[in-house]
Amino acid sequence: MLNEAKNQSPHHVVIVGGGFGGLYAAKALAKAPVKVTLIDKRNFHLFQPLLYQVATGGLSAGDISSPLRAVLSKQKNTEVLMGEVTHINPEQQTIQLQNQEVSYDTLIVATGVSHHYFGNEQWAPTAPGLKTVEDALEMRRRIFLAFEAAEKETDPEKRRAWLTFVLVGGGPTGVELAGALAELAYSTLKNDFRNIDTSETRILLLEGMDRILPPYPPELSAKAQASLERLGVTVQTKTLVTNIEDNIVTIRRGEDVEQIGAHTILWAAGMKASGMGQVLAESTNVELDRAGRVMVAPDLSIAGHPNIFVIGDLANYSHQDGKPLPGVAPVAMQEGQYVARLIQKQLKGDTLPTFRYADYGSLAVIGRNAAVVDLRFVKFAGFPAWLAWIFIHIFYLIEFDNKLLVLLQWAWNYFTRKRGARLITNQEDLPAMGVEEQSEYRTPVKV
Amino acid sequence: MLNEAKNQSPHHVVIVGGGFGGLYAAKALAKAPVKVTLIDKRNFHLFQPLLYQVATGGLSAGDISSPLRAVLSKQKNTEVLMGEVTHINPEQQTIQLQNQEVSYDTLIVATGVSHHYFGNEQWAPTAPGLKTVEDALEMRRRIFLAFEAAEKETDPEKRRAWLTFVLVGGGPTGVELAGALAELAYSTLKNDFRNIDTSETRILLLEGMDRILPPYPPELSAKAQASLERLGVTVQTKTLVTNIEDNIVTIRRGEDVEQIGAHTILWAAGMKASGMGQVLAESTNVELDRAGRVMVAPDLSIAGHPNIFVIGDLANYSHQDGKPLPGVAPVAMQEGQYVARLIQKQLKGDTLPTFRYADYGSLAVIGRNAAVVDLRFVKFAGFPAWLAWIFIHIFYLIEFDNKLLVLLQWAWNYFTRKRGARLITNQEDLPAMGVEEQSEYRTPVKV
Repeated sequence: MLNEAKNQSPHHVVIVGGGFGGLYAAKALAKAPVKVTLIDKRNFHLFQPLLYQVATGGLSAGDISSPLRAVLSKQKNTEVLMGEVTHINPEQQTIQLQNQEVSYDTLIVATGVSHHYFGNEQWAPTAPGLKTVEDALEMRRRIFLAFEAAEKETDPEKRRAWLTFVLVGGGPTGVELAGALAELAYSTLKNDFRNIDTSETRILLLEGMDRILPPYPPELSAKAQASLERLGVTVQTKTLVTNIEDNIVTIRRGEDVEQIGAHTILWAAGMKASGMGQVLAESTNVELDRAGRVMVAPDLSIAGHPNIFVIGDLANYSHQDGKPLPGVAPVAMQEGQYVARLIQKQLKGDTLPTFRYADYGSLAVIGRNAAVVDLRFVKFAGFPAWLAWIFIHIFYLIEFDNKLLVLLQWAWNYFTRKRGARLITNQEDLPAMGVEEQSEYRTPVKV
Repeated sequence: MLNEAKNQSPHHVVIVGGGFGGLYAAKALAKAPVKVTLIDKRNFHLFQPLLYQVATGGLSAGDISSPLRAVLSKQKNTEVLMGEVTHINPEQQTIQLQNQEVSYDTLIVATGVSHHYFGNEQWAPTAPGLKTVEDALEMRRRIFLAFEAAEKETDPEKRRAWLTFVLVGGGPTGVELAGALAELAYSTLKNDFRNIDTSETRILLLEGMDRILPPYPPELSAKAQASLERLGVTVQTKTLVTNIEDNIVTIRRGEDVEQIGAHTILWAAGMKASGMGQVLAESTNVELDRAGRVMVAPDLSIAGHPNIFVIGDLANYSHQDGKPLPGVAPVAMQEGQYVARLIQKQLKGDTLPTFRYADYGSLAVIGRNAAVVDLRFVKFAGFPAWLAWIFIHIFYLIEFDNKLLVLLQWAWNYFTRKRGARLITNQEDLPAMGVEEQSEYRTPVKV
């Protein structure tokens, strides 16, 4: 097989996106008789589950990023290309980058999702989300600037608005951010200011459903909420954000409408598919779901194009239990590995059973000492769950030096309650803290 | 003394600038019967001597930064204020921030220096300098983007320009950047690309004087040059940059004029005093030198204002051996500590002998294994100097967790030759790589 491959041009697998899906697909093709090209806009793989730690000053961006070239350096059949795909031509089997055309035999698209404001995109400047390194640094800048502004403010009401943090969305990101913020305000920064008492900080976690962490079992949601409340977070469920404007968040809870003055509003609610879904739809007529995700076949290929696969958060895979698989890293990794195995089988004229996601459970961390873990066969919470969370996350960090440094930094932060990476950077580009444009849309939105 | 201070409003020392000078002054006042206010534009102290490691992906910005509030958290007589001074009123003994006025009994100004292009400010977008975290991240972005661009480029001449790095200025920053770039190109990235051979990278270090590291003894300059050349760096002394335009650097060496095509041009040549020098001159008529530095008296105060001190890179202290003290961290630290001691003496009606800088020597690192060290009583180079350099630098990192992490990262980078923090960030703001404006100034400049 390998000798044959040497005599002819090898089968070319092009992977677009170096997140969990794309990177695990590439790594699973290391020993395959194929040529692999991994294309990404960025030059690094980002370990998104720890991004909230960068946003709250616990880790540096470099700690949770691995240069894609370094990760794949020794994988001789693989090439990394930095670029953005603008067009796909399935007839020619080519994709178009800015100044370059790349032909493929098999295409794997794994470009993930970005934020979604449910038609209220005008909220984006006031309520940033958390998907990229830049997002995390922007959140970090706003969080630490808010404390600085409060320290200088003499008007009690304005000071209160600077010390109010509203987190929209009670999924894992919202819960983890809320826990980290509570730790920051009530412990790390306790002695750092002279005019404000950071224990007066209000942290509000808003969720539209009747409980936080909706995909988890109800008893874990309850435990998570209790843990957050012990830390000092105010959790409001069944609460919809109806407007964000001039640093005022308007919320509705049943019949009650309330306005909250808050300078720091963090968005952890909606996700929509990346633009590649649209690019694919235009060139292949593949069906997209309402969030823009690509409907995939049981083998993760798209209808009519058995050599184009979509994996990870961009894919809507509804063949397992009727509803789409969740947008989490383990799904993306397993899908990447499945497609890599399938390609190798197909090259031998063989095939594979349809994809099945093996769900080993879910985890979310809540501050310094607590987490909730649902490992299917066992559910637990508190300190053991927190330890499990840390070790599982560090285990999946791509490079060994990152594992080592993050573990050390974590241990250090744990024992000292310090958060050293609290730089406020890019001051020059300081965006206005209020919403500039007037909103045209005032429709209530489910958070 | 302390009881007295309790009964009256304590003497108020205002320090502007949280670099080495300002921070060491503040720390030296920890037990003094005074109130201290430290004002800085940024919320962190930056360990500038290691900034070149951030620019080349060896360390993260968080590793060499310490939040000022955290450093001074336990120093109960000290308050940290984030803000920028716009005006000084010596009669009223007040300084003006954006929205706030602060009164002082003693003022210490320690705002340092920024880059200087010797009247060729239009070179700044093409040839960025290295003073702030943002500068370092911008350099990092350009360096790693250049390799990415070279990997995609098919035209050999253009590719050569992408693989050419020109460093202007052969002082410690230029020498350390050149060494780190050589390590990066010839070792770290060796196996990471498929289309280019990074060993073809050209690294040019240009110096206007007749040797690099001019403030060091000539034999160490020679050793440093030999070390750099062994690493693969081309060192050109007696070389002036006369123009930078459209990614062409024009240099003159005696009668020879040469044009070099280079996409990455890094500025390590000139420094000029920060704007606070001008602010001081306007309000106190103090004399500035040609670089904008403030002429200070033998006790570091300024003429006619015995309660205003200027320390660190912003000060021109020429009372020791006729020429200004060099702009290095140890000078700033000792000046900060001197002024702190002087203030305490003065409060007791006492005084101090004039300031004297105790020069314990100079160091510069050259890549992975070599450095030059001039400790006055002993000069040495090579691996022992490299180890000395590392331990001295890590020793002076402000916080213990930074020391620990930087040491580990350093050890890791040393044994694996990896540089993990090679993120290309802020892509959206990608500035044009060429100089946009046409230059009006074409005067030759000494580098």
